[in-house]
Amino acid sequence: MKTISRRSECPISYTMDIFGDKWTMLIMRDLLLYGKDSFSEFLCSDEKIATNILTDRLNVLLQEGFVTKRTAPANKSKFLYRPTEKAIELIPVLSEITLWAEKYNPDGAPEDIVEPLKKDRTKALLELKKKVEERFRVE
Amino acid sequence: MKTISRRSECPISYTMDIFGDKWTMLIMRDLLLYGKDSFSEFLCSDEKIATNILTDRLNVLLQEGFVTKRTAPANKSKFLYRPTEKAIELIPVLSEITLWAEKYNPDGAPEDIVEPLKKDRTKALLELKKKVEERFRVE
Repeated sequence: MKTISRRSECPISYTMDIFGDKWTMLIMRDLLLYGKDSFSEFLCSDEKIATNILTDRLNVLLQEGFVTKRTAPANKSKFLYRPTEKAIELIPVLSEITLWAEKYNPDGAPEDIVEPLKKDRTKALLELKKKVEERFRVE
Repeated sequence: MKTISRRSECPISYTMDIFGDKWTMLIMRDLLLYGKDSFSEFLCSDEKIATNILTDRLNVLLQEGFVTKRTAPANKSKFLYRPTEKAIELIPVLSEITLWAEKYNPDGAPEDIVEPLKKDRTKALLELKKKVEERFRVE
């Protein structure tokens, strides 16, 4: 299994040791903001991640404790991914990235996420978190 | 000059098109949180960025409008970098990354940044921004 090497003790460096690539944060986005939870769902996002990269990044996310994996109740050959608390707590990071990018890339801003954050950030973050927790509640 | 390709219109994808590597966000950290402004200062950070990578990433940051570059008043062969508004507005992103990582990588958390953010986020963000603006005020 690939080990993530730590370049320093800095929290930003630590975060970029894990998320410093083009794809890992997009899997977090799909899982946390769009409720996607399977390999095939991650694969069909607009950015068109390659299967080998997706496999690799999901393994990193498993290994680093951001997701857990279980077989789908209806299809034993399919895996479903669920975010851990460590992942769910990335929602404020994803939100600030979205708010920042909305200023410089306004065409792609998802209004249903941006508007509540602009109106009442604390409330919007709680609601995003609640939505994830409800979506991934253990059946 | 290298062009950043955009994979989709998503704001998170847009951000990771630029910052989806191990180094670019660390240059922003050095510039915005630690007040570093020269090639030699970026070079001596704990993560030990290589000169060719630093040159490449500074060019991307220039091209994408995150920094401006000028010759040092005291040394005409030295360049100084200054963050633009687009860069300064990344302070909330860097702050949320720091707060998130502090939970999972507590040893490296810079207390002088984390504590004010925990106490009063809005005030702390304003103070971080003010500090950057004062540091990089045109002489």
